[in-house]
Amino acid sequence: MVPHEELARARLLAGPGVGGPVARALERITGRPVEHPYDSEPDGPFLYVGDTLPGALRSPRLLWFHSVNAGTDALLAAGPWPRGALLTRTVGRMGERIAQYVLAWVLAECQSVPEHTAQHARARWHRVPSTLAAGQTVVVHGTGRVGSAVAALLRACSLHTVGVCRTPRGVPPGFDRVVPAGGDEERAALADARWVVSTLPLTGATAGFFDDARFTAMRGASFVNVGRGACVDMAALEAALRSGTVRRAVLDVLPQEPPAADDRAWRLPHTVITSHSAGITADEDVVTDFEACWHAVAEGRVPALAVDTGRGY
Amino acid sequence: MVPHEELARARLLAGPGVGGPVARALERITGRPVEHPYDSEPDGPFLYVGDTLPGALRSPRLLWFHSVNAGTDALLAAGPWPRGALLTRTVGRMGERIAQYVLAWVLAECQSVPEHTAQHARARWHRVPSTLAAGQTVVVHGTGRVGSAVAALLRACSLHTVGVCRTPRGVPPGFDRVVPAGGDEERAALADARWVVSTLPLTGATAGFFDDARFTAMRGASFVNVGRGACVDMAALEAALRSGTVRRAVLDVLPQEPPAADDRAWRLPHTVITSHSAGITADEDVVTDFEACWHAVAEGRVPALAVDTGRGY
Repeated sequence: MVPHEELARARLLAGPGVGGPVARALERITGRPVEHPYDSEPDGPFLYVGDTLPGALRSPRLLWFHSVNAGTDALLAAGPWPRGALLTRTVGRMGERIAQYVLAWVLAECQSVPEHTAQHARARWHRVPSTLAAGQTVVVHGTGRVGSAVAALLRACSLHTVGVCRTPRGVPPGFDRVVPAGGDEERAALADARWVVSTLPLTGATAGFFDDARFTAMRGASFVNVGRGACVDMAALEAALRSGTVRRAVLDVLPQEPPAADDRAWRLPHTVITSHSAGITADEDVVTDFEACWHAVAEGRVPALAVDTGRGY
Repeated sequence: MVPHEELARARLLAGPGVGGPVARALERITGRPVEHPYDSEPDGPFLYVGDTLPGALRSPRLLWFHSVNAGTDALLAAGPWPRGALLTRTVGRMGERIAQYVLAWVLAECQSVPEHTAQHARARWHRVPSTLAAGQTVVVHGTGRVGSAVAALLRACSLHTVGVCRTPRGVPPGFDRVVPAGGDEERAALADARWVVSTLPLTGATAGFFDDARFTAMRGASFVNVGRGACVDMAALEAALRSGTVRRAVLDVLPQEPPAADDRAWRLPHTVITSHSAGITADEDVVTDFEACWHAVAEGRVPALAVDTGRGY
């Protein structure tokens, strides 16, 4: 917890990417000016709002860092986290945005959107039967806010939704059931799935999570990655796309971003890469989420958007 | 109503398109054999299941025609309807299918599915911001089963749904509100709309319904037609697409199907034509809907799938 007396006298620092309107809102919420001295350490306690934490500020005087992004893997990987410092993040309407992205690509495949577009370009009239998504099974890896939003929206199209997470505790909203990662239940779910969607964050436990064993357990599922690129073993994905255990892939994220022009990812069969466009955060998201965290901290609660810096999410 | 004693002794005729499994199911439901004498008139009362009604069978002995399609405009236009004959139709999961089609194209535009697909083909990594459909307004013309299913599914993505129909009676499921066709309220709704979806059947009152006045009342809406092609004045649509009052068009139906290779429809700007693929009916749909009508008729009720042959829907 952030001690009250320290919070009261803490200075408010913001990164270079935090522009005028957001800075004004932060000043209104916290009742203190925004400062930008991110090259030297303040002499007292401070809060920081930004995307990366400059080395000089990785200090025990950091009380609280609020990330303007949802993913904090790069931030945590850049150096040891200052002991006791709270880390919160911006999720905004990311769950809703990513859910609409996933549903767009699921329905694009069911309704042959790319095929119709290509056929139209050739002035060709030919009925292309659509597939009703209803009754198909989607397996969603990650049952947090984003995974739950994805599942809930897909269920509106009557898909059957199965969540996978490390330690299932109850069934979060949107899911018909949840199974633990790494066992027979997950393997059976992957074999039944028409769709497999990863919303996993990148942590020590999820790097290379989608490996040969998982991709060969699938039976023609299409794979959508809206989590982190490094959760996927790209060689295993390529082999699965070639053998057909994975039917198609829609990758919003890649292990290397941006990928080089000669990255093998560009030549994966039956794949579309969408340039990390699924879950954008808007200025209003940063302000809304920071304000919710501020109120929680002021009331001595752990913010719902706090990151467990040990687990990494 | 179909008189009980006549129904009991009526013969069951089926068109050439009604194949083995469907015919067997009809025999099970009605307890009589399916006959195929569609070139001469039976000497007693008969039912007919098919897509078109042969001229020789447009007779006062026709008790009931069950259409294997949802649209009955061509059937009714082919000649005067036999007086007193019940007309029912197959809707099946058409509402659900068409709703998923409409949502697929709405989300394809919001999420730039065609742009991402094209960008991928050029191995180009460039973030394309997506648009959240939430909060946008969709105007759905036609508030029957199909229109209602379309509205309900779009509402799952938090769109605001406005129905337009000739004579509003209450607010059908899926709609936030319903306004009457042809007045200031409809004009205001069209001006607010990000999406305009037609599910209108073709009747005397709907031919050329989407005319210059309606298209110029729009302020950059995208237009989706899953009803009937002849409800649209194509010259007016073309002008609106060129001036920008209509942003994009997705046309599942055209006034002339199939269109000739030199049909102007192929050269409409910002348009995709999808070859009447949105609302297919499957064999199981025909059987399920016929059976529901059969039970209603046997119990002396008007089937929910009965067509008012005067109005045409």
